[in-house]
Amino acid sequence: MRTLIAALALASVPVIMTAGVQAQGVDDTTLMEDANALFDPIPHVVPAVDDNAVTKEKIELGRMLFFDPRLSSSHLLSCNTCHNLAMGGDDNLETSIGHGWQAGPRNSPTVYNAVLNIAQFWDGRAADLREQAKGPIQAGVEMNSKPDLVVQTLQSMPEYVDHFQRAFPNVVDPVTFDNLARAIEAFEATLITPASPFDQYLEGNPNALTAQEKRGLVTFIDTGCASCHAGVNIGGQAYYPFGVIEQPGADILPLEDKGRFAVTETATDEYVFRAPTLRNVALTEPYFHAGRVWDLRQAVAVMGVSQLGEELNDQQIDDIVAFLKTLTGEMPDVEVPQLPPSTANTPRPTPMTDQ
Amino acid sequence: MRTLIAALALASVPVIMTAGVQAQGVDDTTLMEDANALFDPIPHVVPAVDDNAVTKEKIELGRMLFFDPRLSSSHLLSCNTCHNLAMGGDDNLETSIGHGWQAGPRNSPTVYNAVLNIAQFWDGRAADLREQAKGPIQAGVEMNSKPDLVVQTLQSMPEYVDHFQRAFPNVVDPVTFDNLARAIEAFEATLITPASPFDQYLEGNPNALTAQEKRGLVTFIDTGCASCHAGVNIGGQAYYPFGVIEQPGADILPLEDKGRFAVTETATDEYVFRAPTLRNVALTEPYFHAGRVWDLRQAVAVMGVSQLGEELNDQQIDDIVAFLKTLTGEMPDVEVPQLPPSTANTPRPTPMTDQ
Repeated sequence: MRTLIAALALASVPVIMTAGVQAQGVDDTTLMEDANALFDPIPHVVPAVDDNAVTKEKIELGRMLFFDPRLSSSHLLSCNTCHNLAMGGDDNLETSIGHGWQAGPRNSPTVYNAVLNIAQFWDGRAADLREQAKGPIQAGVEMNSKPDLVVQTLQSMPEYVDHFQRAFPNVVDPVTFDNLARAIEAFEATLITPASPFDQYLEGNPNALTAQEKRGLVTFIDTGCASCHAGVNIGGQAYYPFGVIEQPGADILPLEDKGRFAVTETATDEYVFRAPTLRNVALTEPYFHAGRVWDLRQAVAVMGVSQLGEELNDQQIDDIVAFLKTLTGEMPDVEVPQLPPSTANTPRPTPMTDQ
Repeated sequence: MRTLIAALALASVPVIMTAGVQAQGVDDTTLMEDANALFDPIPHVVPAVDDNAVTKEKIELGRMLFFDPRLSSSHLLSCNTCHNLAMGGDDNLETSIGHGWQAGPRNSPTVYNAVLNIAQFWDGRAADLREQAKGPIQAGVEMNSKPDLVVQTLQSMPEYVDHFQRAFPNVVDPVTFDNLARAIEAFEATLITPASPFDQYLEGNPNALTAQEKRGLVTFIDTGCASCHAGVNIGGQAYYPFGVIEQPGADILPLEDKGRFAVTETATDEYVFRAPTLRNVALTEPYFHAGRVWDLRQAVAVMGVSQLGEELNDQQIDDIVAFLKTLTGEMPDVEVPQLPPSTANTPRPTPMTDQ
């Protein structure tokens, strides 16, 4: 339902906005107004999460869990391995490498600002971050563990039990897989990147963008990019076919991955993906769900042809890329946690076994 | 030469100290005196490094490099993968997992306080941390890269070039493999863990240790553990055969790894290893160079038989373990760095190729 509403809201956008922006040069008052109608700045405070109060205690526990490789059967891979907070919140690999050095099927999406997406994963199969967090931990090609094993692992360490008790007070048996996911979600809610140059512009500073970046913003709106990439995350809000107009070649869109079709089993969802956020896109190469495009200019050109049916010229591409680079925000300060030591009861790592 | 001096200094220690401590119960004045003659507390300030001034700029660059997986050919493995600052400075695996999910030959030593070791690696084959840092980056079973590739990678990112220029001012071409190693060494020099309960005791606080921990300290000295595990790092200062008295079984000491013999090619160096630091030993399981012993009690028992020719009784083992747990110090606060984004000139990761 949220998906549908978002899609409808966005569908009406380009028509309205194109008229407002197209004709003019760069009048900041009008452009700011138009941009504010389409986009929202990243909040400066940690956003609330549905049905999961973001408390200090949960954030602290979630930070520990996010960095703890003992959530994987090998004890080598943590959430941070593929969602590396030092590198734009992803791994900058074509597709992620997981248990046993297997290559996963899709490019790792950034965890930064992910809390502001309408749903998680490229196909939106998780409604929220706490559902998402449970996936890679169990996936045989990723962390290759099981809920029981993870809970047994955490319960073996008194310090973790204490942290769960503090994060989930008045709960009799707080060390559960579900609470682990809730704590990770709470920590991930803090991973927002406000105050990008574009956000400063949205917030009223006309000098936050250069003339070229403003031209890029106008082009981004006028050509229709903002039809799918709008809202606070400049994407991440709804689902679209990769190839609204023209499907790209199998080098970019491998035919075996049918996207959201695997979730809905609806023919019209073949090769449908959630439009990714463009927040921090300059840090999250390579691009698209298959991670086959390393160059942001090429990614923009591909989008022009496949989604807009338009061969963008060099000037347009350069301007849009200049604008996209203004979407890099301020990264939160994250300290490396100190994890509780394993005990005699902690299940040992089994890096060399399959699931 | 430093090795020899350290070995001589330590050799004279047990004889002197045993006489001083053995007879008494727990007289803090005497025990503190005796302990201070054998051990030194971890310094509260970053120690100087020979021929490599530890500057703020080098530390900052070194922190980035330490966490940057692009020093590996796969772009997946960083120094922090095997020397995880969240987990006692090692990976808590039997032996490390590296490129292509290969298992390395030895257990990863902790990076915490490593700057205070006389030499690096289990066999001491690197004189210092800057020599050490170059090893795993190039090892086919670890990060699987090459100096040229690493330098090309760093040079492709203007932000890194800036950082090298600031860390190595007045140098014409500062982005070199050697300077990379110097910056990592400078960062690693900050990874010291002062103020452990034992250090507080050494520094004069009689209440920093419990009665059992003091008994453990006395036993540690009296039984001869401190013959090899002394100095500021309670180990890490000299080389000894694994099996001074009795070689342990191949389950603990695999016969194919002859230790320092591979470095010196001297018959008397067969199965000789650098005594590891016992700093933070409660966090760095599993134990010994092959990582086959997970339980600290068992590790102490093995040492008793193999190094001292003594079957320690349960009480002695419990007391020594209680003492060893007082060697966990205060971990430095380390913030996750923000790494420069790759550029079009940055060599792409090649996770699926061999060296």
